[in-house]
Amino acid sequence: FPSRLPHVGTTIFTVMSALAAEHQAVNLGQGFPDFDCDPTLLDAVNDAMRAGHNQYPPMAGMPQLREAVAAKIHTLHGRQYNAATEITITAGATQAILTAILATVQAGDEVIVLDPCYDSYAPNIEMAGGTIVRVPLTPGTFRPDFAKISAAITPRTRLMIVNTPHNPSATVWTAAEMQQLEDLLAPTNVLLISDEVYEHMVFDGAQHESAARYPGLAARTFIVSSFGKTYHVTGWKVGTVAAPAALTAEFRKVHQFNVFTVNTPMQVGLATYMQNPAPYLELPAFYQRKRDLFAEGLSQTRFKLLPTAGTYFQCADISAISDLNEAEFCQWLVKEVGVAAIPMSAFYGDGFDQKVVRFCFAKQDDTLRAALERLRKL
Amino acid sequence: FPSRLPHVGTTIFTVMSALAAEHQAVNLGQGFPDFDCDPTLLDAVNDAMRAGHNQYPPMAGMPQLREAVAAKIHTLHGRQYNAATEITITAGATQAILTAILATVQAGDEVIVLDPCYDSYAPNIEMAGGTIVRVPLTPGTFRPDFAKISAAITPRTRLMIVNTPHNPSATVWTAAEMQQLEDLLAPTNVLLISDEVYEHMVFDGAQHESAARYPGLAARTFIVSSFGKTYHVTGWKVGTVAAPAALTAEFRKVHQFNVFTVNTPMQVGLATYMQNPAPYLELPAFYQRKRDLFAEGLSQTRFKLLPTAGTYFQCADISAISDLNEAEFCQWLVKEVGVAAIPMSAFYGDGFDQKVVRFCFAKQDDTLRAALERLRKL
Ligand SMILES: CSCCC(=O)C(=O)O
Ligand SMILES: CSCCC(=O)C(=O)O
Repeated sequence: FPSRLPHVGTTIFTVMSALAAEHQAVNLGQGFPDFDCDPTLLDAVNDAMRAGHNQYPPMAGMPQLREAVAAKIHTLHGRQYNAATEITITAGATQAILTAILATVQAGDEVIVLDPCYDSYAPNIEMAGGTIVRVPLTPGTFRPDFAKISAAITPRTRLMIVNTPHNPSATVWTAAEMQQLEDLLAPTNVLLISDEVYEHMVFDGAQHESAARYPGLAARTFIVSSFGKTYHVTGWKVGTVAAPAALTAEFRKVHQFNVFTVNTPMQVGLATYMQNPAPYLELPAFYQRKRDLFAEGLSQTRFKLLPTAGTYFQCADISAISDLNEAEFCQWLVKEVGVAAIPMSAFYGDGFDQKVVRFCFAKQDDTLRAALERLRKL
Repeated sequence: FPSRLPHVGTTIFTVMSALAAEHQAVNLGQGFPDFDCDPTLLDAVNDAMRAGHNQYPPMAGMPQLREAVAAKIHTLHGRQYNAATEITITAGATQAILTAILATVQAGDEVIVLDPCYDSYAPNIEMAGGTIVRVPLTPGTFRPDFAKISAAITPRTRLMIVNTPHNPSATVWTAAEMQQLEDLLAPTNVLLISDEVYEHMVFDGAQHESAARYPGLAARTFIVSSFGKTYHVTGWKVGTVAAPAALTAEFRKVHQFNVFTVNTPMQVGLATYMQNPAPYLELPAFYQRKRDLFAEGLSQTRFKLLPTAGTYFQCADISAISDLNEAEFCQWLVKEVGVAAIPMSAFYGDGFDQKVVRFCFAKQDDTLRAALERLRKL
């Protein structure tokens, strides 16, 4: 039978993690912490299991978790989502994004993505039968180019996907940019997916500009987030979608026939744990220190650092070190130097190569130091 | 924007569970146990969390869990699946089925389902852009009608979905029927999804005829199963797919961009727990006793019992009790009698009504007795 995704291979994150394991490299490729989560969170999940929370939760998620998510968005961004009709718990952010796309995109609809972008977006659009329209972020700065976005919108544009804090570039959209997006979309019917999984990793006192803060955006947007990233439990696969009731109703039609619902004890445990806002309020400082530790070390090498305003990624230019392209360089780095990174070209539809690689600094200080020691030898 | 699934509402299981809660009814509708799982399994998951198994597992699932699944299939059914390339862990059986469909069905492809069938199949096929071809099971007996199936196969038939033990009819396919299916498909390229989530609930000494036992079927089949159903943890949302390497490769392309992967501590805990085969070997006797308890009680009412050869469902004819149709009867039953059941018409594309409702007997004996007490008053 003909492949539905003929040019899709194994995601780069799996490939690099496997190579890292094979070569006993320090894995700064795939984005995940190598340290443990707060044991209080494990206690809460264990308590939920022992209390018998092991059968199907409601399809949209446990009410107390949806309430906690709505309350958090209200406190942080001032918008009130209805927990019953506008918040859905998902099996991670990737499932949320596919589900939103399957719920809104019909064959022939166009979907705008901003390159570079996360590698699931394009195959997700393909699965829905949509047409991918790639608009590049400004080369070098990775800022949105509103003239280009505007030019890409047609009567067939159903959906656009944005992502702030941005993976892989580690940039963060400004209030002015969000405002410009709001103005640009105002006369259109274009829906939006706002991928905000790094919402709590914004540094240097800046603020995360959630789409929830912009009424003209929020009214058309699926806001996607991830407990895995915020609470250091990427393997739990629990995420959220906040969207107006009309969008949520269509989302849930697909959701109920994709995963139906999401792991009950994790949901109950997360709801308990969310009662204390400290863990996510302290996250910027926690990761800013790691960013600084890693950047300080990397600045003593021939890598040229790009700014990291958000996310747990540090990008670096390799042109002073090597003539290899990004993908070849990452292969060489993992095998010969013992450090795994991700080539930025993996995030472009056309494999655009700007001699930049991405490191993940969501690691124990000792892990970061071990990587730096190897990188300093270059 | 136009709905992708315009005629899809909220799944009947959610609707009836909500009504049951509202009316304080005994919920024999949605299929889930109202008793707890083995605490040993909870210990295993808790140990996994405490040991730090909280980050992304490999995309296809934890190797030890895939090995355990392959070993079980080999022991029970004599077919050796390669754990690395032929077993994938999914976020439940529903996600497995959607993913297999998205991986194989292109716009215009035909997919055969046997009515009555589980209510996710048809929307799943619609999401992939496929055409649903409904072939009725034999009225009254619910046996597969091979003449009708054969007549439904065309050059555009890409896939067929079968389900044994069968939800909702509680029938079980015989070896002769599986053989007939194997022969019928032999000259075709039709792929198969074999939904075997009730594999360990087969009664009266009969045996579950997995597609894995039929080489001509296994070579073209995605075999889907569910830990939630086997281990009384429907809320954990962990399932499996066993399929030949070529099918698995396409499956994983979609899987990695749907959920990416599945809850790590649950996977590690399940792998530990699977080392002891007793829990699933003892399941037929466990549920046969509950079936007999419930059937014995129900036979003292004016419900007319249909045979239950497998699953944890008991179907019953309501024509001696009421003139209402199935859906109206279930509404009345939950509100006035205080027992939730599922109308069999919910499993038919055309809402075919044969005056049969489905009860779930995966309940504590006291729950079953409480329901029987109410039903006896009819
Ligand atoms: C799902 S594995 C990838 C994790 C991640 O978000 C990244 O590394 O960019
Ligand atoms: C996913 S809720 C439905 C559970 C079930 O399989 C059934 O009741 O048939």
